Amino acid sequence: MNISKENAIDFHRALRGKIEIHNRVSIDSGFGDNDDKGTLGLIYTPGVAFVSQEISKNKELIYDYTSKWNNVAIVCDGTRVLGLGNIGPEGALPVMEGKSVLFKVLGNINAIPLCIATQDKEEIVKFVKAIEPCFGAINIEDIESPKVFDIMKRLREELSIPIFHDDQHGTAVITLAAVINSLKIVNKKIDNIKVIVAGAGSAGYGIFKILKEAGCRDIIVTDRKGAIYEGREDLLVTAADSQNLDKLEIARNSNSNKLQGRLEEVIRKADVFIGVSGKAGIVTEAMVQLMSHDAIVFPLSNPDPEIIPAVAVKGGARIVGTGRSDYPNQVNNAVVFPSVLRALLDTRVKELDEKMLVAASYAIASLVEKIHLKEDYIIPKVNDPRILPVVTQTLKEAIGSIQQK
Amino acid sequence: MNISKENAIDFHRALRGKIEIHNRVSIDSGFGDNDDKGTLGLIYTPGVAFVSQEISKNKELIYDYTSKWNNVAIVCDGTRVLGLGNIGPEGALPVMEGKSVLFKVLGNINAIPLCIATQDKEEIVKFVKAIEPCFGAINIEDIESPKVFDIMKRLREELSIPIFHDDQHGTAVITLAAVINSLKIVNKKIDNIKVIVAGAGSAGYGIFKILKEAGCRDIIVTDRKGAIYEGREDLLVTAADSQNLDKLEIARNSNSNKLQGRLEEVIRKADVFIGVSGKAGIVTEAMVQLMSHDAIVFPLSNPDPEIIPAVAVKGGARIVGTGRSDYPNQVNNAVVFPSVLRALLDTRVKELDEKMLVAASYAIASLVEKIHLKEDYIIPKVNDPRILPVVTQTLKEAIGSIQQK
Repeated sequence: MNISKENAIDFHRALRGKIEIHNRVSIDSGFGDNDDKGTLGLIYTPGVAFVSQEISKNKELIYDYTSKWNNVAIVCDGTRVLGLGNIGPEGALPVMEGKSVLFKVLGNINAIPLCIATQDKEEIVKFVKAIEPCFGAINIEDIESPKVFDIMKRLREELSIPIFHDDQHGTAVITLAAVINSLKIVNKKIDNIKVIVAGAGSAGYGIFKILKEAGCRDIIVTDRKGAIYEGREDLLVTAADSQNLDKLEIARNSNSNKLQGRLEEVIRKADVFIGVSGKAGIVTEAMVQLMSHDAIVFPLSNPDPEIIPAVAVKGGARIVGTGRSDYPNQVNNAVVFPSVLRALLDTRVKELDEKMLVAASYAIASLVEKIHLKEDYIIPKVNDPRILPVVTQTLKEAIGSIQQK
Repeated sequence: MNISKENAIDFHRALRGKIEIHNRVSIDSGFGDNDDKGTLGLIYTPGVAFVSQEISKNKELIYDYTSKWNNVAIVCDGTRVLGLGNIGPEGALPVMEGKSVLFKVLGNINAIPLCIATQDKEEIVKFVKAIEPCFGAINIEDIESPKVFDIMKRLREELSIPIFHDDQHGTAVITLAAVINSLKIVNKKIDNIKVIVAGAGSAGYGIFKILKEAGCRDIIVTDRKGAIYEGREDLLVTAADSQNLDKLEIARNSNSNKLQGRLEEVIRKADVFIGVSGKAGIVTEAMVQLMSHDAIVFPLSNPDPEIIPAVAVKGGARIVGTGRSDYPNQVNNAVVFPSVLRALLDTRVKELDEKMLVAASYAIASLVEKIHLKEDYIIPKVNDPRILPVVTQTLKEAIGSIQQK
């Protein structure tokens, strides 16, 4: 089926919901026949009361007697859905239901979409704290930056279950995996390339951080005002207010030459372009022509990339990847979040540090064997069955080695 | 299997969760093969973006393109779980998962347990308002009274989706159905009987209201201080503070003779005893002996009833019903909530008035044909397949006739 507006809407209208609740127990008995003390009396009153009492005495038992161990809440306030902007919680729900489908198929996780009717930072923090009892982990999704960074910080301090920020960490892991394998094809080294990251929201910040950790030394992040550099006036102003501290961190730890200028200026001689700007079409064929030889171009914004792949190729790009499933090289966090959340649920570690994220990237990259690696196959497909075991095992080992220290 | 503590816990440990998320669509294609623009691209990016945009332009479409039309949130703060008291949200989860199982089997509804980590009235109201976008209706469950009455009032004013308070309305409907059919057996009329309701929480309040609406003229509600009557000193004190307004309403509209005294005193000559006190064993064989001939005794507290059925029979009770599935006559709101929520979801009416609730009781009572009606079969079994169509049809007609006025 072609991915047209009409087909997408018809498909959703026919389904009326991509996920549903399914019972893991059939009540085949216990409906009040005198000689039948069956399932209903065990899963509901009176039997369930024993279970409730045991849990209330020892809260840890909730992991053994309920679905908490495998439940993830996808929390979204609708402020930054895909590249569509602030379309509200209702508009976000179809995306989160789709995400839940992927969580199930790829990670065997119960992911409940909770698209909420508040965009207030304090209210969102309170909301997530309120749902903690029923969930084994939280996936924060499509909440605008920089608000989301504060929310993440607060939740990590105040919750006892793992929190994952897919827009930041999921995107970072899959992007680094794509960079690692692309560099093998073009024979360049990560410590010797110039990377442009267009977009300084959650994804841009996460990609900047993981590239640093992986050894990349020349990164320039751009936002709508152009290159971010230490001393840029608007950042000094907002920093005085404790605003945009994430951009300040980027400014201090990237662009060591303090290059100034717009994207079309700083992209010159770049080896890699990564677009997470949410702005369709901001990269032109001429801009790709300015890049270094064997340019690697990842316009990842969804649904509409920063440049159409065919145009990037025309401009001289050797490797192109997008966030979409209908082009080659889908650099999509769907490769990442099911297996990372599986690992978080299984280990109950509260958060992943940058080292663990880099390990996950290398694990994903390694799934493309050298003989198969080529321009249009740089990362495993979203449904590659090896991803789940390899990534969860890698992360569990990384977590274990940290915890032993 | 016997309903022992050991069996209940073993069963829950083996299941590790009674419900799970299930996909309604299989992603059989679209995982990034070049010639394959399949399902993934429709349910997730890029195709889903068309759907999100349409919903954000016209929020009503969320009912057509997502699972909202069939999603119910079971919201519980753990303050009054079964008859176990304030065991917290963790202890509540197994009960709510069991409830979700019944919602699915009996009403084909996706019910998501949200057992929350706040017991503050204002926070609970905010929480429910936050989740409104994703759910077609809300089921408020096991929140202590009188707090819950204020919460219900606020939610009805501030939400646009239906709210159901099962402890109050579900219990009321099934109890009235049981009373209606019991009276047929003992040949008494509802306008000519004395009813004692032990317990003035959500269930007691709801039963008082539905009995009044159904024409019962002699109702005495008791709480831990004994019979509630107009002028009882403690109620005057709290009323001055706008507290316990529900009990004040009971006092003004029941017990017209202003009978005072403890349960064992006021139960004398009662035709019907209904226990929703949460206190096991407060009714003795001697107390049942004080009741009128052909006594009807419904000790409904869960898991442990106010009197063991065999003891009530020994005291002279002719008809006995409990809330449990392992005794005859399960007077359990599981007969009610799946079909009532089905009707609320299908009609999107915001709340049911007392007339509609009485109509539901008569519809349920009618399912026990005269030739089958006997002391140990007064209400249909929880899994009677006729309940869903009959109750939903009755409610839709009642709602339709109200809306036409």
